[in-house]
Amino acid sequence: MINVGIVGGTGYTGVELLRLLAMHPDVNVNVVTSRAEKGLRVDAVYPNLRGFNHLCFVEPSLDSLSGCDVVFFATPNAIAMHMAKGLLDAGVKVIDLSADFRLKDVATWQKWYGGEHACPELLNEAVYGLPEINRQAIRSAQLVANPGCYPTATQLGFLPLIAANAIDLSMLIADVKSGVSGAGRSASVGALMSETGESFKAYAVAGHRHLPEIIQGLKHQASKEVSLTFTPHLVPMIRGIHATLYAPLKDRKLDLQKMFETFYQDEPFVDVLAAGEHPDTGDVRGVNRCLLFTSLKMEGL
Amino acid sequence: MINVGIVGGTGYTGVELLRLLAMHPDVNVNVVTSRAEKGLRVDAVYPNLRGFNHLCFVEPSLDSLSGCDVVFFATPNAIAMHMAKGLLDAGVKVIDLSADFRLKDVATWQKWYGGEHACPELLNEAVYGLPEINRQAIRSAQLVANPGCYPTATQLGFLPLIAANAIDLSMLIADVKSGVSGAGRSASVGALMSETGESFKAYAVAGHRHLPEIIQGLKHQASKEVSLTFTPHLVPMIRGIHATLYAPLKDRKLDLQKMFETFYQDEPFVDVLAAGEHPDTGDVRGVNRCLLFTSLKMEGL
Amino acid sequence: MINVGIVGGTGYTGVELLRLLAMHPDVNVNVVTSRAEKGLRVDAVYPNLRGFNHLCFVEPSLDSLSGCDVVFFATPNAIAMHMAKGLLDAGVKVIDLSADFRLKDVATWQKWYGGEHACPELLNEAVYGLPEINRQAIRSAQLVANPGCYPTATQLGFLPLIAANAIDLSMLIADVKSGVSGAGRSASVGALMSETGESFKAYAVAGHRHLPEIIQGLKHQASKEVSLTFTPHLVPMIRGIHATLYAPLKDRKLDLQKMFETFYQDEPFVDVLAAGEHPDTGDVRGVNRCLLFTSLKMEGL
Amino acid sequence: MINVGIVGGTGYTGVELLRLLAMHPDVNVNVVTSRAEKGLRVDAVYPNLRGFNHLCFVEPSLDSLSGCDVVFFATPNAIAMHMAKGLLDAGVKVIDLSADFRLKDVATWQKWYGGEHACPELLNEAVYGLPEINRQAIRSAQLVANPGCYPTATQLGFLPLIAANAIDLSMLIADVKSGVSGAGRSASVGALMSETGESFKAYAVAGHRHLPEIIQGLKHQASKEVSLTFTPHLVPMIRGIHATLYAPLKDRKLDLQKMFETFYQDEPFVDVLAAGEHPDTGDVRGVNRCLLFTSLKMEGL
Repeated sequence: MINVGIVGGTGYTGVELLRLLAMHPDVNVNVVTSRAEKGLRVDAVYPNLRGFNHLCFVEPSLDSLSGCDVVFFATPNAIAMHMAKGLLDAGVKVIDLSADFRLKDVATWQKWYGGEHACPELLNEAVYGLPEINRQAIRSAQLVANPGCYPTATQLGFLPLIAANAIDLSMLIADVKSGVSGAGRSASVGALMSETGESFKAYAVAGHRHLPEIIQGLKHQASKEVSLTFTPHLVPMIRGIHATLYAPLKDRKLDLQKMFETFYQDEPFVDVLAAGEHPDTGDVRGVNRCLLFTSLKMEGL
Repeated sequence: MINVGIVGGTGYTGVELLRLLAMHPDVNVNVVTSRAEKGLRVDAVYPNLRGFNHLCFVEPSLDSLSGCDVVFFATPNAIAMHMAKGLLDAGVKVIDLSADFRLKDVATWQKWYGGEHACPELLNEAVYGLPEINRQAIRSAQLVANPGCYPTATQLGFLPLIAANAIDLSMLIADVKSGVSGAGRSASVGALMSETGESFKAYAVAGHRHLPEIIQGLKHQASKEVSLTFTPHLVPMIRGIHATLYAPLKDRKLDLQKMFETFYQDEPFVDVLAAGEHPDTGDVRGVNRCLLFTSLKMEGL
Repeated sequence: MINVGIVGGTGYTGVELLRLLAMHPDVNVNVVTSRAEKGLRVDAVYPNLRGFNHLCFVEPSLDSLSGCDVVFFATPNAIAMHMAKGLLDAGVKVIDLSADFRLKDVATWQKWYGGEHACPELLNEAVYGLPEINRQAIRSAQLVANPGCYPTATQLGFLPLIAANAIDLSMLIADVKSGVSGAGRSASVGALMSETGESFKAYAVAGHRHLPEIIQGLKHQASKEVSLTFTPHLVPMIRGIHATLYAPLKDRKLDLQKMFETFYQDEPFVDVLAAGEHPDTGDVRGVNRCLLFTSLKMEGL
Repeated sequence: MINVGIVGGTGYTGVELLRLLAMHPDVNVNVVTSRAEKGLRVDAVYPNLRGFNHLCFVEPSLDSLSGCDVVFFATPNAIAMHMAKGLLDAGVKVIDLSADFRLKDVATWQKWYGGEHACPELLNEAVYGLPEINRQAIRSAQLVANPGCYPTATQLGFLPLIAANAIDLSMLIADVKSGVSGAGRSASVGALMSETGESFKAYAVAGHRHLPEIIQGLKHQASKEVSLTFTPHLVPMIRGIHATLYAPLKDRKLDLQKMFETFYQDEPFVDVLAAGEHPDTGDVRGVNRCLLFTSLKMEGL
């Protein structure tokens, strides 16, 4: 049994993690921390976990977490970076769902996330947690930085094209759409049902934190500079990510369908749909799967 | 032209009021106040009003509001009661959209809303703003207390039956449902799209502030004690109120359809549907109208 | 391994069944039938099942289904009744998710569902599939009639009170609310997003097919006549059932919380919440669980 | 008074038209036709029009419509083209909300809409009903072809850039999103709440009928060939259109904000937001207004 601790179990990534781990045959969730909900039962804050989790939230501390084999951080940004070192030194594996360890360059991190990074020396050691590019490294890593939502969709979509050197990297476009839970479980007027229901809009067009993460990933895959226009949008639904990606193809005669099917044939979490089958976020709700679909722009129009 | 001021124009009742008044041929909205958004353009906070409102929010003060003919309070509870007296003394008519002047009994108000009422001497003078029972009094009132949402629906539904002495007043039930905007525009986790979307639940079952307001109104109409079971529910939609009301009928042979049509035949804001036509909140979205429908319980079941 | 066949696998009960059975360690789904989608891959019609189901829909026939241990009917009403006998004679267990075998009285069935029942002689043998009242009988049954959605919620709510003889059975009220998927996957204007989104309404107030099923169940539990007012409503969400039930309590001093907790303490699918915890349909989305909550009407109001 | 007739008043464009015209001080709606709902009251099919419309649907005929000054076709495609000529000959102005007269080239129309066009000789006479480019022509036209939804958004967005010769016309991209009512009021599984709620997807990627209409419009404005990649998406909301448009700018130093403000300064239906203000479809719900926003791609990324 793998003994697991979760820091910041009261946000949406936390409850989703608790849901997934509840059914895992090899995992025991021993500790779930939350400063704000300390003392409350986990299943009181999240009734969907009734019967699946009998813990109470506790104050996060090195002591309570050091006994775990793995500790997940399901915290807002700039929290994991204060606790990771202590846990790693205690021999605990750390998987961070926040952005604290996703970027390799600390100046970039500080520019986009603000403040000073608490342990920049760990940035190189951290493994970017996208299994489709880093599976082996993730397996042996002590510190894993789970990717952001838009970066996951955008990188998985562009990867086969980059690997095949099939696109003009100076003109990439990612028009991305997300459900409202991406904003997290914090009280904010902008995420109210009354503000987001029956509405659609772009946001953060001037610059979104996921942009440097995506650029870093695409550059690394391409071993070249890339230029990306990135436009996020808010969809009136709770969960789901949809990325429509555009790139000039060097050769229109490429068989994209075959390229994608081959590239991802051994990847259990990526599913390439047949021509004509449009991916629907509803079809992967609650499931760890990314559906992909390719299409050439219509000739003559 | 009626010169109007609106205090607390940044909540949903405020913006709805601004929307309705924008098209009113006899109204000039001169002042819109908000402490938090002071200095901002009204149409920057509410882009749907672009082209219809060119004001900026100002700090609320007796000076800026005394020049108005009418001042609306679209504020949270316990704000209007601090400013009403000064405005009334200055000869300004006051229409309060909050609950500060709805209840006649100050002890009841203080029990349900907390704290001390700032001007209990005005409670008697205040006219309850439900035109179907108080039209004449509203016309000549200086101080109007606009009803709550659930109380509007519940009273309009029971009124004809009470007037006809047709129901057992000791066993009234109101099963009411509301869209999420009823919670207002304040940042709260419970009103997030992520918490309310694709979900339905009862709330405040132990006691809801609208209950004493409804009881007061029904008692007044009946000139008797009434006993009401009141259960509010939250619907995953932005706006809309639906009340399903139950009462034991003294005589099953009463023609309810005719009773309701007759009772409301001259009421412009109440519309009695024909048998078989179920009211849909979507059919009155954005319109000042209440749809009513009656039905007898099926015999033999 | 239990070999399972599903007739009518293209509706929402069918795909939900496929989803639940996909992960069942003891079940093999061998046959999924559909006249309309014959030949199509199941996972093409339902992409959420990609990787979990590799079958194609076939024409329903006694031959293809007789080899199964259990056949589920996830069909519209009046289909299972034409095929059940043949399957039962072939030694196949039948579980019907439709209404064909829920009612004991054929005259009642024909009055509410229309037409002639194809095998009224099976109505007595059929076991009503509500485990909380029929667990043993279900285990040994050859023919199970799964309950309707509203009947499940309404009966589970009233059962402890009926068992304790705690309520006046002549004045029961069930104010019930459902997501739109209850209408099924057939093309109908009334179930369009454009008609149901951002809206709430009562429907079928004059009479709903679930009414006789609920009456039958409550009468059977009470061994007395019962009288029920039943009002269904449509909620702008895909899935979920919420029933708010009302009954005059014979004794206000009864400990309802204890009554319900005790009654359901060994029932794995029923979960009685603590006082103050309101059930939310979102908390049981996709899970075979019913949350219950009791409350006394407030004194003095 | 302008006497108006509406053919096909039972779809969403029809009821929206009825809603808008109900409040028009100069319009009398005399005739509303529908084959399917013939004889029914308009306000029974559309209760939101109760009190605003007292007509019954009638069978469409040249006789009943010839007495009108203007006849609107709110019909599916391929209906108006069978009736327009007769009405025009009778001196009636025709405004078609469908696609029958939007395209100038009959071969293109037949390729995308199927079948034979009933009166190709009228295609040249028809005025494309986008006031921002055709205001004068619309005023004096006898036959107006109202634009499609996506074409309206896409053309209004690109027009200032084309007029300023500021973009590379060979690399245009329109990533567009629509609410579900765009599919119309016909019963279809794909438009059910159960299929579209809490979901997002692209559709018709292989080719959408609005594409030739957009190309025609952009080419006409540019007096050059244009090449457009067009990807429609379905949003889980009832109404709203959002277009995110991409084009390579010839000169990054262009003041786009000023360009758009100047281009549209006299246009009452187009509203250019300030930098940083993202348009939200909810802000123009029910209003004849298009909000625009421009942004340069971030440098260095």
